[in-house]
Amino acid sequence: MKYGFGIDLGGTTVKLAFFDQEGHMLNKWEIPTVTANNGKQILPDIAASIRAHLVKIGVADQDILGVGIGVPGPVNNQGIVNMCVNLGWGEVHIEDELSALCGFPVKAGNDANVAALGEFWKGGGQGCENMVFATLGTGVGGGIVQEGKLIHGVHGCGGEIGHMVINKHETARCGCGKRGCVEQYCSATGIVRIAEQTLDRCDEPSVLRDIFPLTCKDVFDSANTGDALAAKILEQVYDYLGEFLANLCAVLDPEAIVLGGGVSKAGLPLLDGARRYFNKYAFHGTKGVRFELASLGNDAGAYGAFKLAVDAFGK
Amino acid sequence: MKYGFGIDLGGTTVKLAFFDQEGHMLNKWEIPTVTANNGKQILPDIAASIRAHLVKIGVADQDILGVGIGVPGPVNNQGIVNMCVNLGWGEVHIEDELSALCGFPVKAGNDANVAALGEFWKGGGQGCENMVFATLGTGVGGGIVQEGKLIHGVHGCGGEIGHMVINKHETARCGCGKRGCVEQYCSATGIVRIAEQTLDRCDEPSVLRDIFPLTCKDVFDSANTGDALAAKILEQVYDYLGEFLANLCAVLDPEAIVLGGGVSKAGLPLLDGARRYFNKYAFHGTKGVRFELASLGNDAGAYGAFKLAVDAFGK
Repeated sequence: MKYGFGIDLGGTTVKLAFFDQEGHMLNKWEIPTVTANNGKQILPDIAASIRAHLVKIGVADQDILGVGIGVPGPVNNQGIVNMCVNLGWGEVHIEDELSALCGFPVKAGNDANVAALGEFWKGGGQGCENMVFATLGTGVGGGIVQEGKLIHGVHGCGGEIGHMVINKHETARCGCGKRGCVEQYCSATGIVRIAEQTLDRCDEPSVLRDIFPLTCKDVFDSANTGDALAAKILEQVYDYLGEFLANLCAVLDPEAIVLGGGVSKAGLPLLDGARRYFNKYAFHGTKGVRFELASLGNDAGAYGAFKLAVDAFGK
Repeated sequence: MKYGFGIDLGGTTVKLAFFDQEGHMLNKWEIPTVTANNGKQILPDIAASIRAHLVKIGVADQDILGVGIGVPGPVNNQGIVNMCVNLGWGEVHIEDELSALCGFPVKAGNDANVAALGEFWKGGGQGCENMVFATLGTGVGGGIVQEGKLIHGVHGCGGEIGHMVINKHETARCGCGKRGCVEQYCSATGIVRIAEQTLDRCDEPSVLRDIFPLTCKDVFDSANTGDALAAKILEQVYDYLGEFLANLCAVLDPEAIVLGGGVSKAGLPLLDGARRYFNKYAFHGTKGVRFELASLGNDAGAYGAFKLAVDAFGK
């Protein structure tokens, strides 16, 4: 049996996990992400943590198939990251540099893509060959799995589905600089924005008027306990979400759509709401798609990162 | 050297072509599509035409690697067509049936997908591994090539990009039954529709007011000769087209977008117009995509159909 590492590199912490080749997570731990000095210490810290773990558990180098890593930015097909604002990075040849530091082959991918691969392998998309993963968190990210492989995209921007334009008449700007992106309506932040706008534009009573600061969870909780205005706010969100997912299906016609990220903690009401509007907007032949919730939570990135390494080095 | 057939099955004619394995088209011809009796005669007619061609040119059965065919409807991953209204077909096991009739292995795909594969192999997308093909004709179809292979979709609906919703406020219905599909704005029919609406809603003079019935070509020709209202109509079309293509790139981040179909005869002004709005709507990381015109015209389907057979049977 061979082993390896799956690493989810975030702006605050690095999540590391040690796996056997079949994808059993044997250990997991975290180290802080040191972004000072343009993040120069990040890769040496990761390499040191990998080496220390091998010493601790007494596994030899020849039993390690490789390292996979997800990073919060686009990774092109030469394994080069170009700008990770959260890490302080400009251009970083992450695969070559980390490999030189830790002594194992390294495969890198975008964090949302890698989480998609994790959910495909061991989570909500298990058993599918073709899957769309949408992560509805602070922003909206995603990943497309096609015949068991990620669509990374030529510039590392495959699966940037949160930046599809869904409302060209929007006046506010998305974080990406454009206007009317999916992320402005279907992220936790977007849902709060829709809620605040709706509260401002009508006089209808709602328990939401007494909550400050308002969170996405408040909107779902209030709708669940019968607040009519909260329910109306969510209908707007479901409408955007259903249209967005229907458009993805017209392109890809996948077997399953898996929803993850903080918003997906709303659970079945979210799936049901999105499905209702999906059915309105979807091309008829694609309606057989299954809607699933992500099941790996914060571990999806580590699982998917290790799967990158298995696919690249594990045969 | 082996040989094979690429067949483009349309509602009026069947286009057949004979290729060598490297994709040189050696002969092409057409037979009528007999749709009477629920299209029962279509596959026997094709098989007879294949057999007759082999007799005529004196090539032996063992030198034929197989037959590829594109059909005007979804083909699932078991090679089954489910409803081709244009052919009178219900459920047809096209690969098995045509194979039994002609004596060669058969691989089938949706016609727009197959045309995409043709343009990828020998046309406007040559040299790319990742390409989006959009065919702007009477309707809008398309095909996605990812790492050299088509995305057929689980239900045969991969690349049904003409039925992405782009204007949820549309009141008129698309042919598919939904409202606001790309096809309603970016097809030849859609462009005429936008032109007629624009003419009705303003009093601005235009040479288009004297043309009946108005065609898509009239709109492009009039804009080229300086008609200001025709140019404004095309700006609306380019806006939809640019948004549509930008959204595809946020999902797939391809190397090239290839535009085909009758509307693409407008040539460079179409590419330039679409690119201008694309740049407004596209996620920044995807803007390196190339815009190309399809170059195989009506032969794209035959080339792509034969490529299906090469990929399936040709190694």
